[in-house]
Amino acid sequence: MGSISGVSLLLLVVCLTSPNVLGGKILVFPIDGSHWINMDVMIQGLHARGHEVTVVRTSTSWYIKEHAPHYRSITVTLPEAMNMEDQDFFATLLANILKTQREGGSFISTAKWYWQMLGALSDIHQQAGQLVVEIFENKTLMQKMRDTQFDVVLIDPGVPVGVLVAHELKLPTVFNVRWITSGEGHAVVAPSPISYVPVAGHVVSDKMTFGQRVHNTFKYVFNMFIDRVIVCPHYDRLVDRYFGPDVNFYHLLQGADIWLIRVDFVFEFPRPTMPNIAYIGGFQCKPSKPLSSELQEFVESSGEHGFILMSLGTLVKSLPVEITSEIAAAFAQIPQKVIWRHAGERPNNLGNNTLLLNWLPQNDLLGHPKIKAFVAHGGTNGIYESIYHGVPIVGMPLMFDQAENVLRLEMRGVAKMVDVTKVTRQNFLEAIQEVLDNPSYRNNMKRLSALHRDKPMHPLDTALYWIEFVIRHKGAAHLRTESYKMPWYAYHSVDVICCLLAVLLMLIIIVAGLMRFLCFRLCRRRKPKQE
Amino acid sequence: MGSISGVSLLLLVVCLTSPNVLGGKILVFPIDGSHWINMDVMIQGLHARGHEVTVVRTSTSWYIKEHAPHYRSITVTLPEAMNMEDQDFFATLLANILKTQREGGSFISTAKWYWQMLGALSDIHQQAGQLVVEIFENKTLMQKMRDTQFDVVLIDPGVPVGVLVAHELKLPTVFNVRWITSGEGHAVVAPSPISYVPVAGHVVSDKMTFGQRVHNTFKYVFNMFIDRVIVCPHYDRLVDRYFGPDVNFYHLLQGADIWLIRVDFVFEFPRPTMPNIAYIGGFQCKPSKPLSSELQEFVESSGEHGFILMSLGTLVKSLPVEITSEIAAAFAQIPQKVIWRHAGERPNNLGNNTLLLNWLPQNDLLGHPKIKAFVAHGGTNGIYESIYHGVPIVGMPLMFDQAENVLRLEMRGVAKMVDVTKVTRQNFLEAIQEVLDNPSYRNNMKRLSALHRDKPMHPLDTALYWIEFVIRHKGAAHLRTESYKMPWYAYHSVDVICCLLAVLLMLIIIVAGLMRFLCFRLCRRRKPKQE
Repeated sequence: MGSISGVSLLLLVVCLTSPNVLGGKILVFPIDGSHWINMDVMIQGLHARGHEVTVVRTSTSWYIKEHAPHYRSITVTLPEAMNMEDQDFFATLLANILKTQREGGSFISTAKWYWQMLGALSDIHQQAGQLVVEIFENKTLMQKMRDTQFDVVLIDPGVPVGVLVAHELKLPTVFNVRWITSGEGHAVVAPSPISYVPVAGHVVSDKMTFGQRVHNTFKYVFNMFIDRVIVCPHYDRLVDRYFGPDVNFYHLLQGADIWLIRVDFVFEFPRPTMPNIAYIGGFQCKPSKPLSSELQEFVESSGEHGFILMSLGTLVKSLPVEITSEIAAAFAQIPQKVIWRHAGERPNNLGNNTLLLNWLPQNDLLGHPKIKAFVAHGGTNGIYESIYHGVPIVGMPLMFDQAENVLRLEMRGVAKMVDVTKVTRQNFLEAIQEVLDNPSYRNNMKRLSALHRDKPMHPLDTALYWIEFVIRHKGAAHLRTESYKMPWYAYHSVDVICCLLAVLLMLIIIVAGLMRFLCFRLCRRRKPKQE
Repeated sequence: MGSISGVSLLLLVVCLTSPNVLGGKILVFPIDGSHWINMDVMIQGLHARGHEVTVVRTSTSWYIKEHAPHYRSITVTLPEAMNMEDQDFFATLLANILKTQREGGSFISTAKWYWQMLGALSDIHQQAGQLVVEIFENKTLMQKMRDTQFDVVLIDPGVPVGVLVAHELKLPTVFNVRWITSGEGHAVVAPSPISYVPVAGHVVSDKMTFGQRVHNTFKYVFNMFIDRVIVCPHYDRLVDRYFGPDVNFYHLLQGADIWLIRVDFVFEFPRPTMPNIAYIGGFQCKPSKPLSSELQEFVESSGEHGFILMSLGTLVKSLPVEITSEIAAAFAQIPQKVIWRHAGERPNNLGNNTLLLNWLPQNDLLGHPKIKAFVAHGGTNGIYESIYHGVPIVGMPLMFDQAENVLRLEMRGVAKMVDVTKVTRQNFLEAIQEVLDNPSYRNNMKRLSALHRDKPMHPLDTALYWIEFVIRHKGAAHLRTESYKMPWYAYHSVDVICCLLAVLLMLIIIVAGLMRFLCFRLCRRRKPKQE
């Protein structure tokens, strides 16, 4: 055994520490915003290992820069840029959500809100469709991409433009994914029994009551509707136009070689998976670096009480002032220092212990020994950093998957959820004090952190390994089932069951008919005798 | 990225090369025969990493020795040892199979053969049940095991005695598994859609025709029958006796912390899996060592033609002479040298190029540069060694899963199957010549070998890693779904679907009733007018 370990470790060390001799060429289709933040971590990793990375972006992109030391870029200009690209879009969206929810949410207002959301979703994918057209119709660009002879296309399939380009270029694909078109990534590629796998958007655990399972079924049907009616038609049309009727967009999605899913089961409920899925949840996590002298001084001044960090992520810089003033009032009452990422109107009741900052080194603060808790919106980037550093969370989900994420943390006893639409200084203070004073939150988070860190490889290395695997072997067909190409009734054995039931029914009819016939003959024979 | 890789690699190197500081105590429940051969590889690995291993064996065990340098043993004497423990059992079994199959297999002879097989299966598990009783009733032994304070129980769950012992000792479990009770390991723990996952014993690919899918359904029902009627009752009774009615034997099986499945997808068809499954197919493979001088001389004398290796595994030492003489005649006609593991009657038509040996260093011969092909029965140990060394196969499946295994190799273009019941010198020669002369077999096997070897860790290290993970964290509950505890109708959402259908039906009835009522009222109102 010793020699085997030695050999495989030597191979691994050689494989992962030396610059990659392949020098692969990788075409990347990212999504802007927080998705880009972690795709960029992966690109930096690929660049460090000697690969040549080309990123496709639009001219109105706000996070994805045209020039960077670690990648080249292809910039596509869209005829009409959507307001989606505007950061204000999310501020307006959040304001609308909060307004609707605080007003109690009548059926009409909820329906209106859903309608707006579906409209926005359709707009996003319509714009993505335009991007596909711009790329496919630009013959020079297409020829340039062909000439480059890329080895693999790395895609965030939440907006699956790259899937069509990869098919055109006949290249293998790797997905860096949590959400895809309109649902959770697994739903497209792995069996997802709705009896214990909560459907995307359904804030329940994996142990559902009967009512929750009924609700989960409705959510499943609703997500199917969004997927097949709102999202996919934008791409179906393009697939039909460029590849003809024999190619199915959904099959292109399902046919990705490797799925790097941004999930770790210390966070996600255990569920079925597939051989071509690698889990890379927390791949962006890394040890903290020392703080700037100002921040270090502020943090040190907290003494034994330590400090709390508050940040609501990339998209939402601030909340309405009626909420922030409640939070500020609660913060003012605790002995801890508070560092709050905040860009909007400054609450006028801010305590002396609270420092507002436009930007802060989140990972370095989370890794600081004096941190006591993290007040977060529940985006996965922040959650994984918090798990990595073992910091308990006060979750204040705003939109998207955030409530589901915080629920998962609550189930593991590492977070307390606060409803942002009902937040008061009192309930916010109680939530913070519970997480600070009850040691179980911190202990559970330390245990989660230990489980999360106990892996054969760092998740980023896992991601790089599988991307390079696809480059080395020109795909990973042996890990990918093609069962998705079966018609649904065959996949679910409906035809077999119906056939067997039909045979059974026929047998019953034949036997019943025979018995009736025999009975009839028997009776007829007896009657004459009686006569 | 560089630094992250550095850190995680350093951790990994420290973790896997230094003796384990934990010094875990591991209780092992192996299965005798070829299963033991690879369990022993794992035990050697654990021993080399500083763990203390205790193996439970019976006094009549033929492969598992009482004394070994790398483990302690607990020997249990059964009141009546079964003839199963006798190696002749398999010789007789094979002779019966061949006789039945060569005679064409009438319905009655096939049914008789199945009946005998089911009887033998029931006997094996009845004997295992006796072993459980012997252990549980031996208070001294049980106390000794409790006092030892084991960290984990490592079990080959084909005979799941250890599962009951682990539950009694309240210890986490790791399975080293391919077959469990009566089916393939996955069937118990992961979704296994019968539309594309061939059921154990069904020799088809994962792309089935309608007829094959019907057949697969019957096989599934048959396997369920074997499982629930022939195998499980032996353990259900014991679980009821020792743990009471609240504990379910099947749930104990499904509740294993980690499943080390002896499968690699270069060999197995891709299929759904679970987060607590780690694939260790080929974990016994290792580089070859130099041959003895006699063997080396024989092999070298083959010149440019190289040599062929033939071995039918651990259980079957030889075939009936009417078959071996056909094989010998075929071998005599080829320019290659042949090394044949053979223990029975010596065929009198043996060629000068053929060397018969009672035992041979299979791995060292498979790794020799002069080897051209491997004539094998299709047991997984030999198959993985052949894949590891990139040697194409002529498969001659005899029993158990061997035909399924060889089919998987044929599907990948790395093997040619010969039906042992219909073997003649002519068709055997043709099969060998095809594998030798058509370069695609060798090239495909080289490609498979490259895919198999391209892993972040050697499969044995993966196995050791997860066993130690369970020791470090006292289980792996976060990777294990408990959905198996749901009733089947809830798991498959049958109750939800029925409820929704009932509501739909009620709505239809109400609407129809209302419409009828309105119609009736309308008609009644009109009629008087007409009158």
